[in-house]
Amino acid sequence: MEIEFIHDMTVRAVNVNAADKLVVNAARVSYGSRAEDYDEQANAGLINYLLRNNHGSPFEHGLFTFYVEAPLFVAQQWMRHRAGHSYNQESGRYRVLEPRFYLPRSFRTQTGKPGAYQYNELTDNWDKCSNSIMEASHEAWQHYRTLLSEGVAREQARLVLPLNLMTKFYWTCNPRSLMHFLDLRTAPDAQQEIRDCAVMAETALAIYMPLTYAAWRAHK
Amino acid sequence: MEIEFIHDMTVRAVNVNAADKLVVNAARVSYGSRAEDYDEQANAGLINYLLRNNHGSPFEHGLFTFYVEAPLFVAQQWMRHRAGHSYNQESGRYRVLEPRFYLPRSFRTQTGKPGAYQYNELTDNWDKCSNSIMEASHEAWQHYRTLLSEGVAREQARLVLPLNLMTKFYWTCNPRSLMHFLDLRTAPDAQQEIRDCAVMAETALAIYMPLTYAAWRAHK
Amino acid sequence: MEIEFIHDMTVRAVNVNAADKLVVNAARVSYGSRAEDYDEQANAGLINYLLRNNHGSPFEHGLFTFYVEAPLFVAQQWMRHRAGHSYNQESGRYRVLEPRFYLPRSFRTQTGKPGAYQYNELTDNWDKCSNSIMEASHEAWQHYRTLLSEGVAREQARLVLPLNLMTKFYWTCNPRSLMHFLDLRTAPDAQQEIRDCAVMAETALAIYMPLTYAAWRAHK
Amino acid sequence: MEIEFIHDMTVRAVNVNAADKLVVNAARVSYGSRAEDYDEQANAGLINYLLRNNHGSPFEHGLFTFYVEAPLFVAQQWMRHRAGHSYNQESGRYRVLEPRFYLPRSFRTQTGKPGAYQYNELTDNWDKCSNSIMEASHEAWQHYRTLLSEGVAREQARLVLPLNLMTKFYWTCNPRSLMHFLDLRTAPDAQQEIRDCAVMAETALAIYMPLTYAAWRAHK
Repeated sequence: MEIEFIHDMTVRAVNVNAADKLVVNAARVSYGSRAEDYDEQANAGLINYLLRNNHGSPFEHGLFTFYVEAPLFVAQQWMRHRAGHSYNQESGRYRVLEPRFYLPRSFRTQTGKPGAYQYNELTDNWDKCSNSIMEASHEAWQHYRTLLSEGVAREQARLVLPLNLMTKFYWTCNPRSLMHFLDLRTAPDAQQEIRDCAVMAETALAIYMPLTYAAWRAHK
Repeated sequence: MEIEFIHDMTVRAVNVNAADKLVVNAARVSYGSRAEDYDEQANAGLINYLLRNNHGSPFEHGLFTFYVEAPLFVAQQWMRHRAGHSYNQESGRYRVLEPRFYLPRSFRTQTGKPGAYQYNELTDNWDKCSNSIMEASHEAWQHYRTLLSEGVAREQARLVLPLNLMTKFYWTCNPRSLMHFLDLRTAPDAQQEIRDCAVMAETALAIYMPLTYAAWRAHK
Repeated sequence: MEIEFIHDMTVRAVNVNAADKLVVNAARVSYGSRAEDYDEQANAGLINYLLRNNHGSPFEHGLFTFYVEAPLFVAQQWMRHRAGHSYNQESGRYRVLEPRFYLPRSFRTQTGKPGAYQYNELTDNWDKCSNSIMEASHEAWQHYRTLLSEGVAREQARLVLPLNLMTKFYWTCNPRSLMHFLDLRTAPDAQQEIRDCAVMAETALAIYMPLTYAAWRAHK
Repeated sequence: MEIEFIHDMTVRAVNVNAADKLVVNAARVSYGSRAEDYDEQANAGLINYLLRNNHGSPFEHGLFTFYVEAPLFVAQQWMRHRAGHSYNQESGRYRVLEPRFYLPRSFRTQTGKPGAYQYNELTDNWDKCSNSIMEASHEAWQHYRTLLSEGVAREQARLVLPLNLMTKFYWTCNPRSLMHFLDLRTAPDAQQEIRDCAVMAETALAIYMPLTYAAWRAHK
């Protein structure tokens, strides 16, 4: 099998059931009225009020399912999000993994102290860094194939595979937990690779829940 | 306002995005294949296997939203279910509540020890018990009206309202958390009133996820 | 049994395992160092930084268990807090409840629009309002006794009991979920009765985690 | 820095606040009585009853914090446990990681179909497999050092590190979530490396909550 190097992550909304109207109806049950009883401006005002005042529960009545392809180190950061998030990931125990490795388009330098790191593009030695990652991926893949051919179980053979190996998973969250994910993962101190993913997920929020999205942008 | 007595709860599926196929696809991402690659029998077999072996996560990629009308004491039991459950309930702070009270169709006796109670229908004195509940509801409502007319805030006036007052709420859960709710609330030791509600919610599972429902029935 | 009227809620820390040091150690595992390696000022600085930047996970490694006595309407608001909160409440199915009812020391008026209510003390007619609540409690209790003596199961007899009935529960949370509870329940738009409870819980945070408490006060 | 190979994981209970008595008291609040009112046999009977009937909430009023050292692939499996679990892990963004790699004492073969794999010891070629893992670790470490010396940020340099790299984390859970973890991770279909860890955590349950542990063993 030929090794493939991947520059770009995939975050594709595959199943969405979310709408501003669902937020409004859930909130209005408090008053005994419904979204249809109000015009868009009133609904936008309500959504703004809810977000500004931390009334999060009306934003839980919806669903976003994304199909994601990302390197292992990104998946690990992602799956630390727990409340309101569900995942099913490709298994290295059930199948032989594929030789698809993430290769950065550019490298960064890191300066400053914990909590206040500065990242800047590393301009000089892209070739050298890139080659190091490609070599590392090739070598790891050879060891993986060797262990498998020696008869080692897949769950043990994968020990040699690196964090830039691409993985696949389904991710389901509700609008509230999606916004919380975006709060943390589009922030300047998030790692650039997961920020790139978060921006793709943000698009789904913008499309399906324009009033909520506008309110989230205004308050974040 | 005339007092209304209600015998029946309402549990209406108002927004559902759930299917056996979503379970199968989420599970098959482990193997790198999809539901379409298999026939129904294979998919049923997989769903059975997942439920029997406590692989719960593939059942989290879906959404059921119900609109519920039930007495307060049922709502309280309901909202103890937390992980994977979301609620928005009519507020006694934001609006004057309506004089709608739950009145049982029949009464039960309770015998036996904690953990092994027996409930049987109380056949004799339905009139007396029913009158007691109706009187209590009327009296409570009078006090509520009195307090409001004295200028007491709604959030304090409601203190006199009883647990058979009807309330309204939206309930959203995923298929996994719905099954867990049904495990506990269709069980013989659950209170009859919430069992009546659970049976209505069970219907939605049966309709939208027939393979999952069959597997759940077989294993519970 | 004599009816008892209660003016004050109880929120008693009965089991606590929480300390600023646990936060610091959990956070410092990121760097591979420990709390002992730093002085108090450095630890206070770290805790401030964590709270200010929404790094919540280091605040999850601790436990507060409270014993609470509060009216049912307060318990209902309380138990809407789910993630990181655990409850066990006195059951009206397993035992005959006690005639202990909450009676406000003072009453409030409510003016303004939803989302911007103003509450002011109702100065004139305390006697009338207070009597109404006492009467309502007495009447409800009579109906409860009647239903029980007719042989009705406790789970059905309680239907007539009002929301000012006192209940008892254990509440366990971690420092992060406690702070989130305090954020919402010490806020000016929370109902006064649960604010009174929240203030008692706040004391435990102040005693056991002084650095965290100071940081929480500064950022809320 | 010299590379170190590690055969054994560490799971050390560093802070525990858990006892059978806490379970009993939480459950008995339903009845309005306390653990002290009963003898040990009655308490054991209650705990058995609770576990057998899925009354999980009384087991949430306690805390176990463990310090864990395990390879990355074990940590990933571990952190999929969400409800009632908290984690803080060593960061590859904040510090240069240490060259400590997990090396299996023995290797396994894998036969059979998904859902019914058989694992047996691979007896012949330990040397070859072991060398492959050691070489892979050495090579990966060289690439990591190269990338760092070229000025690449730690968060990107770590891309070449393999899944057998050792990591450190604090893990806090309550008795209920611990038992759920043990249910899944001491099961025969769990990967041996995480089973070895789970067995160490099981010891803490046995020591601090002997009645609960006995009941859990009897019902699992």
